[in-house]
Amino acid sequence: MSWTLTEEHLEDLARGAAVLGTGGGGDPYVGRLLVRQAIREHGPITILDPSEVGDEDLVVPTAQMGAPTVVHEKLPSGEEPVLALRTLEKHLGQRASATMPIECGGINSMIPLVVGARLGLPVVDADGMGRAFPELQMETFGVYGVPGSPMAIGGERGETTVIDTGSDNRRMEWLARGVTIRLGGVAHIAEYAMSGAEVKRTAVPRTLSLALTVGRTIREARENNLDPVSELAGALHETLYQNLRVIFRGKVSDVERRTEAGFARGRAQAVSFDGEHKLELLFQNENLLALVDGEVRCLVPDLVCVLESESAEPITTETLRYGQRVVVVGISTPDLMRTPEALATFGPAAFGLSYEFTPVEELL
Amino acid sequence: MSWTLTEEHLEDLARGAAVLGTGGGGDPYVGRLLVRQAIREHGPITILDPSEVGDEDLVVPTAQMGAPTVVHEKLPSGEEPVLALRTLEKHLGQRASATMPIECGGINSMIPLVVGARLGLPVVDADGMGRAFPELQMETFGVYGVPGSPMAIGGERGETTVIDTGSDNRRMEWLARGVTIRLGGVAHIAEYAMSGAEVKRTAVPRTLSLALTVGRTIREARENNLDPVSELAGALHETLYQNLRVIFRGKVSDVERRTEAGFARGRAQAVSFDGEHKLELLFQNENLLALVDGEVRCLVPDLVCVLESESAEPITTETLRYGQRVVVVGISTPDLMRTPEALATFGPAAFGLSYEFTPVEELL
Repeated sequence: MSWTLTEEHLEDLARGAAVLGTGGGGDPYVGRLLVRQAIREHGPITILDPSEVGDEDLVVPTAQMGAPTVVHEKLPSGEEPVLALRTLEKHLGQRASATMPIECGGINSMIPLVVGARLGLPVVDADGMGRAFPELQMETFGVYGVPGSPMAIGGERGETTVIDTGSDNRRMEWLARGVTIRLGGVAHIAEYAMSGAEVKRTAVPRTLSLALTVGRTIREARENNLDPVSELAGALHETLYQNLRVIFRGKVSDVERRTEAGFARGRAQAVSFDGEHKLELLFQNENLLALVDGEVRCLVPDLVCVLESESAEPITTETLRYGQRVVVVGISTPDLMRTPEALATFGPAAFGLSYEFTPVEELL
Repeated sequence: MSWTLTEEHLEDLARGAAVLGTGGGGDPYVGRLLVRQAIREHGPITILDPSEVGDEDLVVPTAQMGAPTVVHEKLPSGEEPVLALRTLEKHLGQRASATMPIECGGINSMIPLVVGARLGLPVVDADGMGRAFPELQMETFGVYGVPGSPMAIGGERGETTVIDTGSDNRRMEWLARGVTIRLGGVAHIAEYAMSGAEVKRTAVPRTLSLALTVGRTIREARENNLDPVSELAGALHETLYQNLRVIFRGKVSDVERRTEAGFARGRAQAVSFDGEHKLELLFQNENLLALVDGEVRCLVPDLVCVLESESAEPITTETLRYGQRVVVVGISTPDLMRTPEALATFGPAAFGLSYEFTPVEELL
């Protein structure tokens, strides 16, 4: 069930990853260019189904961390995440059999592919967020007992940092964020090194394939003059992300965004085309909450996705702007991401929101 | 020429280290309590003359880093610098034969003694600053070619960080400061691991003994009703710190101090007892510059020391306050610290001061 990812997949993959990134995860266009270059130089990438990973194999996930507003201006060379992985291997005294995304969304669906191509390592079709989240402790890996530590950070000048906070993944995030800020607001990391058995137990499976499906469905709908949102709803119904609900259609009327403490935080508003209804969005790198006329319509960990109203092209939080015509959809997350332990780590309360989590399919 | 440091030495050592700390280096009282406890629990400490260290031996210096204003409130347990040393040893795959101070001043004359007592390791009688400086690249070790990296940081909750910036010690300082801020403003470190041969070539020798001499001289002068400042000048004349000059006597009239970017920065003013003259002091953790009536009287790397006017008890920058009666002295530094390479690293320009370095003995 392993498959080969080539340059032809990248456009669909980037679009799908941007949808699943719920506005964050870093600019997928930049990631796409990095993977394209890596494939051209090193050849296509083997994608491993999680069921195919040996229980004893060492899997070392790789990623970018930082504020999307910064990633937009400060592009990596592609060597930084390789440096992070090599640094962690050296620290552990063990070579990785594969790499894997830590989040499925935006550039972080792409970074492990860059590493895979450059090093000839397979990439596991799974991740630790099932979407994009802004902080490193917000991983199903950690929720189900895999420590993030030790983690390695690679900088653009060849600097390396290895952080070990034992089982305290929040503390790891706190220190790594400090280093990332000092590296200029973006860094590349290797963390949550784990066995194949742990991948099978704790990862959200097949989210690279899912991103590809999402991106391809939207493209094919456009090519065949079908409604991309309805087509997407149909395609998702066959996956672990079963329910898509349209939350709002309208025009962006206000965006307030600031880069603080290493994150892009802010809120946006939109007004329905008939001027009768108002949408409010809240984000920290990713969209966290959608309110329509003051009523909750979708909230973390369920996906709040802002799409361009005609083409369903995803819009990231750092490119949201006044006047955009949008359709906002909510997408339900797999059961693995809705357990009490999971909600304690990345549910509404983890972001300081006072709303109780309710599945999007019950809200709409 | 090795000697044994016991509890009886600590009062003199702490006082002397505070003088050489030129206002910084962290609270020596806290350090003294930590060493006393370590000696009571683990026995006295072997102090090695640098000439006695084997050329091939691995020496791993240990220290505290952070803003003195924070150290004052956030006390270490003593385990943190041990954790830093052990983490660096593990990273290097080699055990240390000895530890050593990185600076001679304040708490950083004491931290290696805590490590030495707890681990039964000898402490080399030398350091890498010949005084206290606020930043990690400001070391004679680095000036003469020993890289600070890899360095290890130990936190109070058992967190560890290993930073490697190759030969770029400024970059190491920048990243380590970011981690220190995230650890609450104070951290414990092991850095500039080097061979015995490198100690002999790059360290400022016998500065632990020097601190002891300074502290003892001041105490004995008091006990014998002699002027402590004159006695100190006489004692220093026999050392590498040959010249002591009295810069100013008067009362502190103003102190402006802020903790920013992980440092205690500020300025202080004093007025002479006759009201005719004005002293201005500038500091970043340590005193950097003394002006009298607008004229430079002493500047980095030479030592600007603020002492209580009768007892010659040193006053650190974080305890300077309105109304204190002080005598301010300048002390010349060894030649090793006044070479062009040394001045480029920790001379006036390294602190953004536009004054050219002139030895204190030529200024007064």
